[in-house]
Amino acid sequence: MNNTRVLLKRRTGGIPQEQDFELVDAATDRPAAGELLCETLYLSLDPYLRGRISGRHISGAINVGDLMGGEAVNRVIESKSDRFRQGDIIAAHSGWQSHPVVRADAARQVNPELGPLSTLLGILGMPGLTAYAGMTRLAGLKADDTVVVSAASGPVGSMVGQIARRKGCRIVGIAGSAEKCRWTVEQAGFDRGINYKTETLRDSLKRACPDGIDVYFDNVGGDTLQACMEQLAFGARVILCGLIAQYNTNEMPPGPNPAFIIKARATVRGLVVYDHEDLRPEFEQQVSRWLKQGEICYREDCVEGLEHAPALFCRLMRGENFGKAIVNVQGTDFKSVP
Amino acid sequence: MNNTRVLLKRRTGGIPQEQDFELVDAATDRPAAGELLCETLYLSLDPYLRGRISGRHISGAINVGDLMGGEAVNRVIESKSDRFRQGDIIAAHSGWQSHPVVRADAARQVNPELGPLSTLLGILGMPGLTAYAGMTRLAGLKADDTVVVSAASGPVGSMVGQIARRKGCRIVGIAGSAEKCRWTVEQAGFDRGINYKTETLRDSLKRACPDGIDVYFDNVGGDTLQACMEQLAFGARVILCGLIAQYNTNEMPPGPNPAFIIKARATVRGLVVYDHEDLRPEFEQQVSRWLKQGEICYREDCVEGLEHAPALFCRLMRGENFGKAIVNVQGTDFKSVP
Repeated sequence: MNNTRVLLKRRTGGIPQEQDFELVDAATDRPAAGELLCETLYLSLDPYLRGRISGRHISGAINVGDLMGGEAVNRVIESKSDRFRQGDIIAAHSGWQSHPVVRADAARQVNPELGPLSTLLGILGMPGLTAYAGMTRLAGLKADDTVVVSAASGPVGSMVGQIARRKGCRIVGIAGSAEKCRWTVEQAGFDRGINYKTETLRDSLKRACPDGIDVYFDNVGGDTLQACMEQLAFGARVILCGLIAQYNTNEMPPGPNPAFIIKARATVRGLVVYDHEDLRPEFEQQVSRWLKQGEICYREDCVEGLEHAPALFCRLMRGENFGKAIVNVQGTDFKSVP
Repeated sequence: MNNTRVLLKRRTGGIPQEQDFELVDAATDRPAAGELLCETLYLSLDPYLRGRISGRHISGAINVGDLMGGEAVNRVIESKSDRFRQGDIIAAHSGWQSHPVVRADAARQVNPELGPLSTLLGILGMPGLTAYAGMTRLAGLKADDTVVVSAASGPVGSMVGQIARRKGCRIVGIAGSAEKCRWTVEQAGFDRGINYKTETLRDSLKRACPDGIDVYFDNVGGDTLQACMEQLAFGARVILCGLIAQYNTNEMPPGPNPAFIIKARATVRGLVVYDHEDLRPEFEQQVSRWLKQGEICYREDCVEGLEHAPALFCRLMRGENFGKAIVNVQGTDFKSVP
């Protein structure tokens, strides 16, 4: 049984290329005491990885020759820890490999009853918790708020909108294709989708938010953030969560003029999901219930086999994915508990 | 009895010049029913007026030919309202004129027992209330916070620091001359004054705030804001209050990259004093007591006679004033109740 791994082969500026990654096969490591040998079922690809490749992300750099990082849902094949048994399903930051050895104290038991296993990396995982923490803890959401979210068809954005919708808010999503916009409105129940690639963002925002933006949940930064800051309503709340627009650059481009914050008496807050781990039990219970009742929907962009991870990651960084980027590592359907 | 008035003569870009203003004499208006004829005792000059000249301030534009605006402490000479009597001291936005006629419902009775009359425009007036609202309502101030404030020797900045000092915080002031820095430390009790004109701001901030900045109260924007955002501590609070650095430009220059807010999990809020009028009674009582007990100090940059208002305003906009810019309009000492 080999362990297939994907390493960072070179570090370039700009949008990553498939050639930046290298697939290697090696013998599977043996687990030592306190460790678990696992098979990776689903691997999550997330935009923050681009920041790790640049060495700029708070969770640490990925250097040339390193295993690509990322969270995965794994099944324990062999346990050298009394905390887990063979067959257990765990989540761990075990990276882009098929058969990782994971320290038991770095693994998190997951409940496969919560929903399909792949959703433990999306709507029921880190992106879902990000949206949940932002909307329930930081946004000060009120029923008549007009909420705008960027990267609206992604796992964070679609969850932000659906939580706000359940609260009774008006939801405007910003996304990069007609298909994504259609999905946010027809499937996820947004009131309006704005295609920033074909529409004039400022004009469309004005029409969609005639009384201004009460809550803006920002996943992208750049000009989208600028345009939203210009149209904040009095007392607006802005949650800064992601900066996709600048992940592929080596600069730190400037941001919006502070006058927009003063004029709107806005409150702008930075959100990093790691700070909100305490919310996870409540979040899992709540979102799992919504999911089982068919009250929220999600979208996945899934490939089968680790060899396709680089291509999907590159698509993700070009904004060409549609939904949560997931690698089904074993190529088998684990939607139900195996 | 003539009414001497100062009008805006021309609108130029950049820092205002004395020639932009015109002194004119006219007969004093007669008060109609509900109005008060006053003599202006002290006139406040404030940086926000520059924004009104540009037509960009929320309190409305001052156009060429208009009376220059601004708040003043006035004495009622003749009252056509039952709300005020001759001899009453009022505050009103009556502008740069010696004998205004003011609508009684736009005048605010002031208590001349609170402190010297000129301070009702400074430490006991709008700038003081600005600092008080920011520090007591928005800053979430804790005793071990490191607080940084720009324009530190001005009426807002010096009050921000002194309120924080009373709470037990470490205070670092940023100002534009050695004399101003010395005053903030020796008189106002700041722990450190940074002269941004002669020191390397980022290095000095690092030395003064080795654990980062917990609270930054920003009166200036521009590069000072940028430098402070780069050094925020985890959970920092930033209060955006003034943008002196951009008042003299016609552009909206960009601001700091949002990544600094995310990294620090900072909360950034816009402060406009008009929203906090409800705090005024508490504020006046508190600050008056501190003032009488000699626990806080203030500094005024005072000229005598309206004809000197343009020069003082231009100095203010060049950052060459030192303390609250005040015009003693009648040229007599009204520090005690006349």
